Amino acid sequence: MSYPDLALHTVTTKSWSISECIEQYARYGIGGISIWRSAVEGEDLCSVQKHVKDAGLTGISLVRGGFFTGKTSSEREAALEENRQALKEAECLGLGSLVLVCGATVGQTPQENYAQIRDGIAALADQAQHMGVRLLVEPLHPIFAGDRSAIPSLKVANDLCSEISHPNVGIALDTYHVWWELDLEAQVQRAAKNGWLDTYHICDFKPDQRDLLNDRGLMGEGCIALSQIDEFMKDAGFDGFREVEIFSHSWWQRDPHEFMEAILTAYHDIYYS
Amino acid sequence: MSYPDLALHTVTTKSWSISECIEQYARYGIGGISIWRSAVEGEDLCSVQKHVKDAGLTGISLVRGGFFTGKTSSEREAALEENRQALKEAECLGLGSLVLVCGATVGQTPQENYAQIRDGIAALADQAQHMGVRLLVEPLHPIFAGDRSAIPSLKVANDLCSEISHPNVGIALDTYHVWWELDLEAQVQRAAKNGWLDTYHICDFKPDQRDLLNDRGLMGEGCIALSQIDEFMKDAGFDGFREVEIFSHSWWQRDPHEFMEAILTAYHDIYYS
Repeated sequence: MSYPDLALHTVTTKSWSISECIEQYARYGIGGISIWRSAVEGEDLCSVQKHVKDAGLTGISLVRGGFFTGKTSSEREAALEENRQALKEAECLGLGSLVLVCGATVGQTPQENYAQIRDGIAALADQAQHMGVRLLVEPLHPIFAGDRSAIPSLKVANDLCSEISHPNVGIALDTYHVWWELDLEAQVQRAAKNGWLDTYHICDFKPDQRDLLNDRGLMGEGCIALSQIDEFMKDAGFDGFREVEIFSHSWWQRDPHEFMEAILTAYHDIYYS
Repeated sequence: MSYPDLALHTVTTKSWSISECIEQYARYGIGGISIWRSAVEGEDLCSVQKHVKDAGLTGISLVRGGFFTGKTSSEREAALEENRQALKEAECLGLGSLVLVCGATVGQTPQENYAQIRDGIAALADQAQHMGVRLLVEPLHPIFAGDRSAIPSLKVANDLCSEISHPNVGIALDTYHVWWELDLEAQVQRAAKNGWLDTYHICDFKPDQRDLLNDRGLMGEGCIALSQIDEFMKDAGFDGFREVEIFSHSWWQRDPHEFMEAILTAYHDIYYS
């Protein structure tokens, strides 16, 4: 059985090299791949692009840029420079989008962080457009609002896109981060209507997770109403990939093939039944 | 030095008996107390009320009721009965409000949880009013949206109060839960304007917390812009107590007197300087 509408993030199978990711994803019948920067460190990016294409996979996003906030202008300028480097990598890899974890600096208010994020994205949007790489704001769960992202909801990501109002800026929606929003359906509709609903990441949220960062659940292991959110996406006209992105020490400790089988089984159960 | 505008939740010093809490809080010059149900289990509640009064403390809230959600009507009815019991306890203790951790049931959507919460509070509001006990919705950080509360923000708590629209229903705002909201100032204003801004809990949010439940920070240990939020409260006309409620295994392992001193020092630094 193949799953042409399923993609994986390389971090999900992080013990594999980029070549192994590409070959194994293709072998398992998966349709797409999003690439973490760490997975291609030191690699020839043009060769990776060719490998992805030859394997029959669709390359989706480079993950990740962002982290625009900082107490000094030189810190924020360094962040822009780092993002310009990421854009070059995305271009070389033939990936059409860069996912942004937008940043938050302890000691700044949420509003200060938000303003720096807005200014950072606005400063890069034209250049990214010329390179053929869309900038995708990924709202992050408010767990991370202190030190990773001051964009804590799809609502705020929509507000940000509206304020920046640039045709090259959109949104990467991850179920892990936005499942709790009461008005999620309306916000998904709003994003879609404005052309911001670019990509769609799936995994689950375990209420009893032991580690804020690396204990994400396989679909079905947690409390997210995944089928309901999938309906919201379909109703909004989204027809892109469902991308599995799971950080999990417990899964990473197991054989990646075992994890792959578990992902495909969970995917089938939730999205094909 | 005394702090007449400071209150403590008994859970903060949970190794102390209720009598010790009352006596020590008064000795340290603190003005108010909110009482956890577990702290008065098996106690004569009228005597506790008298003890609070004789010590010169103001009793604020009983903590906590709520948990209105459940998959069956009998579970939800049992939750109402438990809340009626809590209301009786609040009445006996002479406490004017019951703080509600509203509930969330894994397997239900956020919208289903919300509807059950709304119906549960609406079912109790008249009775609680007759008993002289206000029902206070405590929005909980979205960390807890899966299994503790589907009211994940002050925005949603305001929406809920608006929908229930009962003069005996208000809000307990805790900085730990709502600090990340970009529109917090507007939501504080909205709550105040409608007469819902009843109580105000303070503590800090550590971005690197190890335990989702019991690793809350003392004010200043985390990333919350506490002074900014305090300005929002003052600007909205709030003139009640600042209530310290900290669940912390690491602080609980230390001598409660050491913790009390640390609380007073942090309180002084942030709110009196």
